[in-house]
Amino acid sequence: MADLNEETLTDAVIAQMASTPDPRMREVMESLVRHLHAFARDVRLTPQEWLGAIDFLTRVGQACTPYRQEFILLSDTIGLSRLVNLMDDKANRTGEATEASLLGPFYRENAPEFGHAESMATRAKGPEMILFGRILDDEGRGVPNAVVEAWQTDADGAYDLQANDPEVMDMRGRYHTDADGHYAVRTLIPLGYSIPMDGPVGAMVRQQERHGMRPAHIHVLVAADGYRELVTALYLGHDANIDTDTVFGVSESLVVNLRENLPGSPVPSLPSVRYDFRISKRAAGDTTGRVGADPSKIAAE
Amino acid sequence: MADLNEETLTDAVIAQMASTPDPRMREVMESLVRHLHAFARDVRLTPQEWLGAIDFLTRVGQACTPYRQEFILLSDTIGLSRLVNLMDDKANRTGEATEASLLGPFYRENAPEFGHAESMATRAKGPEMILFGRILDDEGRGVPNAVVEAWQTDADGAYDLQANDPEVMDMRGRYHTDADGHYAVRTLIPLGYSIPMDGPVGAMVRQQERHGMRPAHIHVLVAADGYRELVTALYLGHDANIDTDTVFGVSESLVVNLRENLPGSPVPSLPSVRYDFRISKRAAGDTTGRVGADPSKIAAE
Repeated sequence: MADLNEETLTDAVIAQMASTPDPRMREVMESLVRHLHAFARDVRLTPQEWLGAIDFLTRVGQACTPYRQEFILLSDTIGLSRLVNLMDDKANRTGEATEASLLGPFYRENAPEFGHAESMATRAKGPEMILFGRILDDEGRGVPNAVVEAWQTDADGAYDLQANDPEVMDMRGRYHTDADGHYAVRTLIPLGYSIPMDGPVGAMVRQQERHGMRPAHIHVLVAADGYRELVTALYLGHDANIDTDTVFGVSESLVVNLRENLPGSPVPSLPSVRYDFRISKRAAGDTTGRVGADPSKIAAE
Repeated sequence: MADLNEETLTDAVIAQMASTPDPRMREVMESLVRHLHAFARDVRLTPQEWLGAIDFLTRVGQACTPYRQEFILLSDTIGLSRLVNLMDDKANRTGEATEASLLGPFYRENAPEFGHAESMATRAKGPEMILFGRILDDEGRGVPNAVVEAWQTDADGAYDLQANDPEVMDMRGRYHTDADGHYAVRTLIPLGYSIPMDGPVGAMVRQQERHGMRPAHIHVLVAADGYRELVTALYLGHDANIDTDTVFGVSESLVVNLRENLPGSPVPSLPSVRYDFRISKRAAGDTTGRVGADPSKIAAE
């Protein structure tokens, strides 16, 4: 028998898991065990702390419902969701394509269709804005008939699923580019919002004295035949929390600012943002991922 | 704004958590984030795998009940519980004291009292054995009036909580040492058993083609005024799974073998084990831990 101590235990665990037939599962579990044990050794985790962690994770699991995914929220608040998103983007983004961001839990299939510069705020009221620009390919040519799908909070910081009867759709819509790749979305200026703070993850964020806020943003999904689907978001630079997003979704290249009298805006009298999204041809074997893609699971994007 | 990529993200997360007032929580979370991110980078965790992990952890949390602790079972099967136990033992064990082992979820307060060599099998039937020896201090002197508490499965591999009405206690008892530190427990030969295989952790163990078994063992808790409480277990060397315990509880120094006609046994006609437990004086500020100590939570010891 190999005697177990804190140095030999990790290898003993990995040796027992070596029977795993699936090579990827074996690789992932070996790495997980090594890193998790290294963490416990580094901080000299005590039995009391271990029991606290067991209790916390149990409460996270038990807070999950068909409409709330507290483990995704935990993953979001410790930066793991964004890390997976960044790695996926690095592995699969090609050419000059726009950076990805988190899809989040508020995406819904079958959003209503709108015409060029038509407003997707069909119920909510508040200060308006325009988002417009072009969908471009790797050579900078406009992509005709691309679908530009946008969704966001209303001017109070609530998504339709939070503000209305869940059957109602608002503040989301599908637009199509013209022959030169132009698109234009008329909408409300979104408001930033707090992640759900009433569960165990909210309690953790409070213990860390973090504000728990996400800066205002507009989610955008761009799809066109033969191109890689782009899942991203634009973040409004005027938001006070633009540098301290609780779920680390913001990238410099995705920060935009509202401008008055912006040339080319279909409604120059409204504050406007011009943003050209770049998409790339779909490669063979592309594993585009939608992190947090299950729309029945509500976390914090 | 610091731009986020897979290299800079980890520091950004830690920077946001720097507001944590409790220094120990700050230290633990920083290390956890560093190791968890390093794991995700090492294996290039994909969005699909991430979503699978979210789903798995959610199911683990939702499998927990007042009588079942699936997160402790997960921690056990990846060696984390034993690691915490080994580190606690290293930090707090002094002198020549016997090694610790996992307390497990089947410990119960208020076990019945028995006299010297009286049987603690009050209901269960099966082949009998004797466990006897002395409780010794660091100088090898017998400790009088120490409490030796033992608990174990019956000859079918079930604890009383699994075999009977939960109100019934069997296969557990409290013994006291005599003036020279002698103790003797009459009991059944315990049988090894499977961890619960009907939940998500069992599914993981099956996917890894592990047997899921624990070797036969007797839990022992030794307590005496002024001494550090010893929580340990003796493992029966004849068990086929002695080298492959699914929860990694076995240590070489805790493996014992049944002997016929063993000198000193109070019933030499029964297979017997002689084991002297060594306990140490309690130090100031001792943080003895009972890993998995909540008797209302049933996992896999």
